[in-house]
This record gives sequence, structure tokens and C-alpha cells, in this order.
Amino acid sequence: MDALSVLLHIPLFAGLPADQMRILAGCAREKSVRAGQMVFADAQESRGLHLVVWGRVKIFKSAPEGREQTIFVFGPGEPFCLTALTDQVSPAGAMALEDTRILLFPAEVLEAVARKEPSLLFNMLLALSRRLKESIDLIESLSLKEIPQRLAAFLVNSLDQEGRDERIDLRFPHRELAKIIGATPETLSRVLKRMSEDGLLKLEGRTIKILSRPGLNLIAQGGQPPSGDG
Amino acid sequence: MDALSVLLHIPLFAGLPADQMRILAGCAREKSVRAGQMVFADAQESRGLHLVVWGRVKIFKSAPEGREQTIFVFGPGEPFCLTALTDQVSPAGAMALEDTRILLFPAEVLEAVARKEPSLLFNMLLALSRRLKESIDLIESLSLKEIPQRLAAFLVNSLDQEGRDERIDLRFPHRELAKIIGATPETLSRVLKRMSEDGLLKLEGRTIKILSRPGLNLIAQGGQPPSGDG
Repeated sequence: MDALSVLLHIPLFAGLPADQMRILAGCAREKSVRAGQMVFADAQESRGLHLVVWGRVKIFKSAPEGREQTIFVFGPGEPFCLTALTDQVSPAGAMALEDTRILLFPAEVLEAVARKEPSLLFNMLLALSRRLKESIDLIESLSLKEIPQRLAAFLVNSLDQEGRDERIDLRFPHRELAKIIGATPETLSRVLKRMSEDGLLKLEGRTIKILSRPGLNLIAQGGQPPSGDG
Repeated sequence: MDALSVLLHIPLFAGLPADQMRILAGCAREKSVRAGQMVFADAQESRGLHLVVWGRVKIFKSAPEGREQTIFVFGPGEPFCLTALTDQVSPAGAMALEDTRILLFPAEVLEAVARKEPSLLFNMLLALSRRLKESIDLIESLSLKEIPQRLAAFLVNSLDQEGRDERIDLRFPHRELAKIIGATPETLSRVLKRMSEDGLLKLEGRTIKILSRPGLNLIAQGGQPPSGDG
């Protein structure tokens, strides 16, 4: 794989001159991670900036008894561990949700490039601001919203992100979806069944077929779900 | 008040040369906010960077029916709205917990200073990284920890932050504490009563006297509270 051709399309590196881009491409280390394998542990030291080339990675926290909360899911072109430049240890763990290929940039090279080209710092600030906004939205969701509303919001956002109208290919088991919306697998299953009975969606394995986007929108915004005969 | 003398002691502006510091001090607008008043609303536009001179401000999300979750509490010397440079709208609302004095820096002046002195971007990146870590810790707390553990962690952190051994002056009502740890006022009251009966702390109005820091440490780390006769 040609690292340079990957970097050219990454918003985080937008505006960097060719020589700095080559320095980054030259220092990048490739890493393959199988689905279910850890990329790094929570509170692990000195990791550098990560970039998903293909596949998907979740950032998560776990409790001693094994429960988990997913905080972010990152796909192709998305950087993670943006705090690598400023923090010695990772604020959470990272695990591959699918077979994943990652590029890894040592913090010291990133810092040297940023010193020459502060636009990289601005881009990192932009990316970190978005992460902070997303984490604030998750806090709002966990503390102030019920499970159906969280699930509906997740489904509507997924449609928006993938630019699709009527189907979401999860590509991971339902138990991973439960960790994203902060529910037990049993509760998620119950809510999905209810939404299916209400004619809002249809489950086809790991694919969720959306039957009423307006209905889901309404629930996502905190409204009452439409009646079961709708 | 001399804005320049305030700025000299703020870590966010550390390393800035005197001329840039004077530009920032010159553009800063002072704002007084009474306890309970909004500093800005959720999703409000173009606000600039805020700095607490004295008093305290909470950043929070609220649900339509009035429930609230506090995300951050900022005191003297702490900046907020760090996303002002990169995001058009605020990701949450801000309200004064006490009578508060704020300095406000327009985003465009901040951007001009950062263009000359990229160290400001690095300092902002550092501050945003910490906020992100704090918000991830809150997500972990809300989704994976029970109320007594959250409360114990809050108390232990407060002791650490204030460099104190045995008393925490909340300076705000218990209902605000409930919004910080993500509990109803009734649940908080019940947990505080239980901790008081267990000899861990003593309530004196808005002051919490800590009787057993090791006991609270244990609960904060997810251990069982000591028995009531301890």
C-alpha cells in the first residue's frame, strides 16, 4: 500500500505541503488488526496518532465485571488517538470491530511537522472539537434519553452518515450495537422487536431495513412512537 | 480590573510574547453573570473563548422536561468554549453557579494571535485533550458506575483538586451536585445519608466533612463500602 496516496485524501492532513506529507508517509507504520482484537489498551502509554485505512475500530471503556460502553466508532479515513500529541496515556481502549488496517504516526514526527506547519495543529483542533461535541452528545444521550430515543437517533445518524435511505448494514453483532447505545443486549432486543412490531423497521440479520424514517425521526427527537397499527 | 495581569497567569496563554498578550488583553470584553443566570444557551452562535476570572460556571445539557446533566464545572483561571475557534455553535449551555466574572475573547482575534504564535494552538489542543478525557471519564461513570461510586469519585477528586484533606465546600445546592453525578436529588440524598450513617462523611449545610478518605477511595475504585459499624 502507498501511504502517501492514502494521506492525500485525509482531511486531517489537508493543506500540508508535499514535503511534510512525504515525511508523514515515510514514518507511518502499518498495522493489521483482526476483528475483536485490541489496537491498544485503556491507559496505555505512548501510542502515536492512528488512522483507519480500512475496517472499523471502536473506542470504549469497560467495567471490571466485563460490561462495556462504546464511545466512538471510526471508519476509513478517520484518525483516532488525537490526544497522542498532548497526553502520555490513552483515555480509553481501542478494539477492531472488523478486520482493520491502520497507519500509525509517532507523536514526535507529528510534532515536528506541526512545528513547521501549524495548519496541522488547527486541523487537529478541529477534529478534537468534533470529538468533544460527539462525546457531549453521548453524555446527553446516556443521562437524559431513554433507550428507544437513543436507538432511533443512532439509526437516523447512520442513515445520514452513509447517505442512505432505507438500510443500515451494521457489519457487527447486535451486542456491539447495545454497547454503542448504552443498553443491555436484552433491552436492545426488546426495543428492536417493538420497533419492528410498530412497522418502523425490519431486521434482516446484521442489516436493519428502515420502513419509516419519519417515525424514527420523531422518536429520535423525543416524540412518542407512532401507534402499532400505523 | 487589569485584563493583562489576569492573562499572565493563565496556562492557556503560557509562552505567548508580550505583544500578543497585550492584543488579547486589549480585545477582552468583561462580563458579569449572577448565580443561576445563563452565560450562553446550548447551540448558540459565535461566542468566542470564555475565561473565568472569579466565580464558577457549569456546562450542561438539558432535556425538554427540565432534567439536566452537568458536563463540566469551571472555576477561576479556566477557559471554556474552547471549540469557539472551530465550531460555529456551542455544543452545550453554560450557566453561572455563583456570581461570576468572565473575560470574553472574540474568535477572530484569537485566530489572528494563533496564526502568529502557534504555541496558542498547541495549548488549546492540550486543553481540549483534557476536556475530552474528562468527558470520556463522565461517559464511563454514567454508563458503567453506580451512584455511590460516582459520588465517592466526585468527593475524592474534589479533595485532590482543592488540595484539602477533610472538607469540601460545595458553594452550590445539593441539587446541583445531583446534576453533576447524574442522579436524581432523591437518590443523591439517600446515598449521602447512607454514607453519613456509615461514618464516611458528615453533612454541614453545603459543606461536606470527610471522615474516612480511605473508605471513599475504596468506593470510588468500585469496592464495597465498609460496614456501618466501622
